[in-house]
Parts: sequence; C-alpha cells; structure tokens
Amino acid sequence: MKNILLTIEYDGTLFSGWQRQPEKRTVQGELERVLGIVCRCPVQLNGTSRTDAGVHALGQRASFKGDFGIPTDRLMLAANNILAGGMNAVGKAGDLRILSAEEVPEDFHARFDAKGKKYVYKILNCQETQIFRRNQYYQVRKELNADAMRRAAGYITGTHDFKCFQSAGGQEKKTTVRTVYELNIIEGKTEAGQRTLSIEIKGDGFLYNMVRIITGTLVEVGLGKLSPEALPDILKSGQRQKAGHTAPPQGLYLSKVYYDLEDLAGL
Amino acid sequence: MKNILLTIEYDGTLFSGWQRQPEKRTVQGELERVLGIVCRCPVQLNGTSRTDAGVHALGQRASFKGDFGIPTDRLMLAANNILAGGMNAVGKAGDLRILSAEEVPEDFHARFDAKGKKYVYKILNCQETQIFRRNQYYQVRKELNADAMRRAAGYITGTHDFKCFQSAGGQEKKTTVRTVYELNIIEGKTEAGQRTLSIEIKGDGFLYNMVRIITGTLVEVGLGKLSPEALPDILKSGQRQKAGHTAPPQGLYLSKVYYDLEDLAGL
Repeated sequence: MKNILLTIEYDGTLFSGWQRQPEKRTVQGELERVLGIVCRCPVQLNGTSRTDAGVHALGQRASFKGDFGIPTDRLMLAANNILAGGMNAVGKAGDLRILSAEEVPEDFHARFDAKGKKYVYKILNCQETQIFRRNQYYQVRKELNADAMRRAAGYITGTHDFKCFQSAGGQEKKTTVRTVYELNIIEGKTEAGQRTLSIEIKGDGFLYNMVRIITGTLVEVGLGKLSPEALPDILKSGQRQKAGHTAPPQGLYLSKVYYDLEDLAGL
Repeated sequence: MKNILLTIEYDGTLFSGWQRQPEKRTVQGELERVLGIVCRCPVQLNGTSRTDAGVHALGQRASFKGDFGIPTDRLMLAANNILAGGMNAVGKAGDLRILSAEEVPEDFHARFDAKGKKYVYKILNCQETQIFRRNQYYQVRKELNADAMRRAAGYITGTHDFKCFQSAGGQEKKTTVRTVYELNIIEGKTEAGQRTLSIEIKGDGFLYNMVRIITGTLVEVGLGKLSPEALPDILKSGQRQKAGHTAPPQGLYLSKVYYDLEDLAGL
C-alpha cells in the first residue's frame, strides 16, 4: 500500500472551498476525480486544511493511500495535464495544480502530523476599484498605517488564548490556546504601482476564521478605528465582538504546512 | 430622446464576449439587463468593439438612446451598484463596471464615430506556471528578446495592407489597409518580481484578431523563431500562414477608443 503526500496550489475563486460536497465544484472533489482517473481506482484525500470558498492555497497538503501502479512522479504530471485543460483555457481551467508528490511512510497523515501552518493575507490599499484584482486581494480604500498594524501584531505574536479571534460555526476545539510564531506585515506594489500589504502569519494551529479576524482587526488598527494598545484587552476578554471584522475570503492564502517543529519555530 | 455614451471596464474571463447571445453571460447582455432595470425601459447598446470571450476592456465604449427620467450621473451609480453585487462578492460579481456616462448629441454613435482604438496585450515572461495570473496574461516561458520585438514592431507601424494579420471568421471588410500609429513594447514586473511585457498598439482600425496575430508574431520574433527583418515580406505576402500564431484572448485589453483624430494621431 502506497501513501502519497501532495503539495497543492489553487486559485479558490471558482471552488466551493476544499471539502467534497455533492453537486459542487470543490478542490477535494476535483482532485479526487482526477487522481481517480490517473490511478485507476477510487481516491480519498486527507487534506491538511479545509479552506473556505474563495480562499486560495500556495502550499496546501493532502495525502492518500492506494495500490496503484503508476510511479509517483508520473502521477503528478498526468494529473496536472488533465487539470490544466489545454494551453489557452480560460476561466476555471488551470486553477488547480499539484506542485509535488512524494511517497511517505504508511502511518503518515497530512493533517494529524502537521505541526503548524503559514497563511498570507493580501490587502490592496488604494482608492480606485481594481476589478482585475478583486478575487485575489481584499481592497481597503483608505490609507492603512502599517506601523500601527505592526505594533498591534506585536501583541498577537506569542502563546495566547485566541478565543476572541474565533468565528462560530467551526469544529469544536478542546482548547483555544495557540502559538503565533510570526506575524509580519510586508509592504509592496502591484505592477501598476498600487500599494499592497501582505500579512504573513505562522502558527501551530488556527481557530475557525482566525486569520481573517486577525486581519480585520489589524485593518481597523491601520484605519485608526482601534488602538494597537487595545489588543491585550481584546485578547484577555475572549469576546469575538471586541475584535475587528472578518476580512473577506479572497485575500487569504494557505501558504505552507509544517511537518517539522524546528522548521515551524524557526530554530 | 437622450443619447448616453458609456465608458466601460470589464474582466472578460467569465463572459462569453461582448455580443448579446441567448442563454449566455455576455457583457452587452449583462449591461442591457442592468441598465433596463435602472432606466425602467428596454435598452439596446451599441458597443464600439465586439470583444471575444476572455478578452478584457479598460475603456470599452457603448451608447444607447431612450426617454428615461433618471439623471445621467445617477444612472452610472445605480447600475454599478447592481453590478458590484455586494462588498465581498467572489467570482463573477464585480467583473464589470461603468467608468463614465455622458450625454452626447442624438446623432452620435459609439461605433461609427470612433476614429481609432488602443489595445494592450499583456505577456508574463517567466518559466514557472502562474495560476493566479492565467486569465489576465499570456504566459510565455522562454525569455523574450524585447529588442528584437521592437525592431519587428518598427516594420508594422505605419499604413499597410494588414491582410496577413487577419483571421477568417470576422466580418467582411472593404479594405484590409489600416494605419498603426504606435506599437510600443514596455517591460515591467509583477508584485512577485516576474517579468512582464506589455504591447501597446494604437490604430485607426483593426482586422479580426489582428492584435492577437501581431502579438503571436512578435512573440515568435522574441523567441528567435522569426527574424525581425522578415516582417516586410510577411506584410507584403498578405498570407496569414506566414505570420505567427494567434495569441490567446486572456492577454488582450481594449484600452481606449478615440473619437478625436488629433488625439489618436498624437498631434
């Protein structure tokens, strides 16, 4: 029995999220369909993260087991060939691809063995509506104060009870204590010169909508609606309504999954 | 009877082109539907250019007539409100908007009165597949020689019979002679640092697929498959098969429509 671990990139715009659902186009559903063709057997994927509709991935991970003949490197090429849907395909075609496929020990599990994750949240900070970027950035029209956002981020980094940054509707978790190892705010520019802010956050685990609520809170700090120094009290309160809004899904990218604790903690 | 001239921007990815078609989502169809709601009467738009599926516009023009009460400035706001489809809409919503609406003389026609147009064709020139840019650039993996492309562009600029750069399937035109006033190749970088080339072309009119075939020909020059000095003979031959391939639709943007000859010719 082989156990294959995939690294996957996708543009989440035209998917109803990761998780397989009847009659809907989901990342898991599409991958299982294509891998089933390539492996000539039914495939059940274990994904590391059940990303929501509209959320993207640069390095999602998923594993699956089976007794199939196709060599691991050919499996990726064959699946990507089907997923690409022709040279000049427009729209959905090409919005999902496998970046790597490797054989792992039989007891390895893409989700349970993950030690942590890194997300990137991309903000486009300019006044004029940018229709060509609407599915890949959260556009904030008023100028954001990146320094204030960095001060707020300093309070979020570390081990805390992050209950205030959790939406209702996720799976029940035993504890809401998590460790955020890094939370960086990086300024950049698009090709056309518009200002961008990328929020990079690395942690040992994330509560439901945690990155999007942290982003919404940092945006409110950047707009001057919330003081950076309010963050310790918000965290201590454990109350969702004290934190900022939930930033929209299209700015969020699952960037990396860590299976090595030293790599995660930057040791 | 009012006559309104619109300037329109759209991401063509999820449209079956400009022209109204039954059961299909087209730019004309979507605009006529929304303007019909706003004006409370049936609307028939005359668009300047019937862009193909997947082709974008930064400054498409269209005019329509009617006896409606709504003031011209409110008309644009109301239509854009419906088109935006909510703050954080994902996917189709927000892929089309009106940039300006102005009242023009009753005998003005958005297409017949156009003196020329400017198109931009965007190329992403890097090796690694860029899934998030797939619908907005033509990705060319091997390095393009921009200087060679500029030499070839020099032969295309001016007044010529452009029959060799015309696809079958367009409307029959009386003459295939056109004037290209400008053809510039501008190098840039994406946010992530990948190389881009923008081909900007301004002319008094374009044959069917002319910009895409000129682009395909320039790409072949940039790859060293075709010599820049072959261009005069290709033009003279009038034979489609001597020119390069038709570049895919998703890199093409209708950038500007000119109603003033002096503006077009840069006088």
